[in-house]
Amino acid sequence: MTSKRNAFYAQSGGVTAVINASACGVIETARRHKERIGKLYAGRNGIIGALTEDLIDTSRESPRAIAALKHTPGGAFGSCRYKLKGLEENRLQYERLLAVFRAHNIGYFFYNGGGDSADTCLKVSQLGETLGYPIQAIHVPKTVDNDLALTDCCPGFGSVAKYVAVSIKEAALDVVSMAKTSTKVFVMEVMGRHAGWIAAAAGLAQAQESDAPHIILFPEIVFHQPAFLNKVKASIDRCGYCVIVVSEGVRRADGQFLAEAGTRDAFGHAQLGGVAPFIANLVKANLNYKYHWTVADYLQRSARHIASKLDVVQSYAVGKAAVELALKGHNAVMPTIVRKSDQPYKWGIGVARLADVANQEKSLPRDFISADGFGITAKARRYLAPLIQGEDYPPYKNGMPQYVVLKNAAVPKKLTIDFKV
Amino acid sequence: MTSKRNAFYAQSGGVTAVINASACGVIETARRHKERIGKLYAGRNGIIGALTEDLIDTSRESPRAIAALKHTPGGAFGSCRYKLKGLEENRLQYERLLAVFRAHNIGYFFYNGGGDSADTCLKVSQLGETLGYPIQAIHVPKTVDNDLALTDCCPGFGSVAKYVAVSIKEAALDVVSMAKTSTKVFVMEVMGRHAGWIAAAAGLAQAQESDAPHIILFPEIVFHQPAFLNKVKASIDRCGYCVIVVSEGVRRADGQFLAEAGTRDAFGHAQLGGVAPFIANLVKANLNYKYHWTVADYLQRSARHIASKLDVVQSYAVGKAAVELALKGHNAVMPTIVRKSDQPYKWGIGVARLADVANQEKSLPRDFISADGFGITAKARRYLAPLIQGEDYPPYKNGMPQYVVLKNAAVPKKLTIDFKV
Repeated sequence: MTSKRNAFYAQSGGVTAVINASACGVIETARRHKERIGKLYAGRNGIIGALTEDLIDTSRESPRAIAALKHTPGGAFGSCRYKLKGLEENRLQYERLLAVFRAHNIGYFFYNGGGDSADTCLKVSQLGETLGYPIQAIHVPKTVDNDLALTDCCPGFGSVAKYVAVSIKEAALDVVSMAKTSTKVFVMEVMGRHAGWIAAAAGLAQAQESDAPHIILFPEIVFHQPAFLNKVKASIDRCGYCVIVVSEGVRRADGQFLAEAGTRDAFGHAQLGGVAPFIANLVKANLNYKYHWTVADYLQRSARHIASKLDVVQSYAVGKAAVELALKGHNAVMPTIVRKSDQPYKWGIGVARLADVANQEKSLPRDFISADGFGITAKARRYLAPLIQGEDYPPYKNGMPQYVVLKNAAVPKKLTIDFKV
Repeated sequence: MTSKRNAFYAQSGGVTAVINASACGVIETARRHKERIGKLYAGRNGIIGALTEDLIDTSRESPRAIAALKHTPGGAFGSCRYKLKGLEENRLQYERLLAVFRAHNIGYFFYNGGGDSADTCLKVSQLGETLGYPIQAIHVPKTVDNDLALTDCCPGFGSVAKYVAVSIKEAALDVVSMAKTSTKVFVMEVMGRHAGWIAAAAGLAQAQESDAPHIILFPEIVFHQPAFLNKVKASIDRCGYCVIVVSEGVRRADGQFLAEAGTRDAFGHAQLGGVAPFIANLVKANLNYKYHWTVADYLQRSARHIASKLDVVQSYAVGKAAVELALKGHNAVMPTIVRKSDQPYKWGIGVARLADVANQEKSLPRDFISADGFGITAKARRYLAPLIQGEDYPPYKNGMPQYVVLKNAAVPKKLTIDFKV
């Protein structure tokens, strides 16, 4: 296919501090190939923008605004949690997508997301064969969870890793100051429902054994209350304080999430949400130490102000590579990060087939977790350490980071029929 | 008094991202006046170090290590939550303090803390008169709560203000990306037991009315559930999402904290936490919007990586000024920050009498809060905006900030009797 066709780009699933850097990579690269790629349309709120023909004309944005995406967190075009069903289950959806693509002469489909999104992208890539519409679908990897298969790491993860490691190091300096007469136990809840990558990254704050975090609770390790409480007590006996990082995905032996276990406070009120307060209360009830806890939630994945420079560079690189793969004629693939060496860290861009990526989850290997289940190993450190390298501060004005808000001008609709998602 | 005497410095109460910058100001200035000030001893864990004769010899630290305090969060010598009783109630405590001061020839007492600590400092300043021991006690202001009287702002506050404003701006970019199909309501809990200064600072993230935060809940404004829920709904109807900042100190009409934890700290203050999940659940139960919430807790006051440069400079300046006031013969005073103009922001150092500062609390003025009680006014903005100006990044190595850990070598004890605190 050599005729000039338009491209579609959308963001999918939970956004990150650097997903817009991938958008920037896609858009700037597409703009450099105007002989092959016409307009680049973004879906407003992900694939929903395609289904509802709610397209954004990115050509209306200045080069400066697009460049500013590189330092702007969140999803500049809106994202969504919406998974396409299989073709057999919902043929209407695919016919609608095709109608929109055809109406706007879209021949390139760039989808920026995690495992579910890779599956969506794979389904779109098959439209050429199954419905006779020529399209090239390229997935742009993104997920803070770092659980995508076949890529050494996931754009978005390095920045969360850095945020978590820096935050726990800072909070630990606070706790150790107060431990003599006040707070002895500090609990930080981090994301990662199914894989403990983010929790493991907190371990980078620990330079020597007595440093925080003293305990990390991983989704990969069944929570064993007596062993945990013993470890808390041992840490306080030895260091005077105990800093705990707990993944939201930690489970009991029966498979239930700790956070869903439900506890009651001193007044008998149901304890509201969060595995951090659950853990903190458990320690209080059994060991009677004064505690504080934090749930970073979205702060961890939007903290562009403390993003990993490497993560920003890699996020841009996969966006750029996605467009280059499309121009080389690829379909149903995803650019990957390939690690060439740990120290010095060297990396390059590879390619994976979406059929091998979609709906896979990469767990934290058991040998990344220490034998007692409460820390990370030297092997984990070798893997994780390069990913938080470098700072890449956004510009500031009047003390605040200058994040761009795009015009996001709508492309005039061409279809007469609305589609309900 | 012109003979050479030693000095005592201690950190008190909750620590901050910049209290060590004040320590740096005290130590570096004392070192420049060796003709008047002999050794500078720090109390290990605040005043407790004085009571237990657990003194740290800061002369054992290199100039480089002391300089690094300027970019290191937490309390480098340990802090405490411990309030001296009145002389009549516990004469033994004061006699013990005197014994330690006398044994180590301490003639200068620098106490770095908030309102409760100012009271302790005042009591120590009176030892000369009441127990016949000549000492000059100077208070060094510090509190993230910004509620100290007679100083325009409190060292420590500007950095929390910046953290909160930046974090809510970033999280809001995440929420607005997801709002179409997922999270519509985001709640961030911030510190501030009795005064809404920190909550107000979040308002700096709002450049125009549709920007986050859409609702701020202040301790100064009684929580009115129907008005709050109406405002949430109006925000979502208008903007598609709603970002809420809630102070831990928000109360019902009956005076009860919204999320009373039921425990009390060493000063008898109720220990708070968990109002964010309370608010989030309230919204869910009444309006059925999908929510996320965060409790930043210690992260907000230890986040040296995003400290306000002005705050760092002012924190250092009050430490330096405290020593200079002592050298000029002052006693029972506190250096203050004096604002000379808003725009351009100009400031200087003033002096306040501790008798006028101790146990006072400076509330957020009502005219800093908008008429509906859910936002800040232009007047508040004029006051707050200068305080978050400038970035002052710590040095990084291997992706992590390089914070100093001092040797904290103990001064050999001279007393034979131990003291139990």
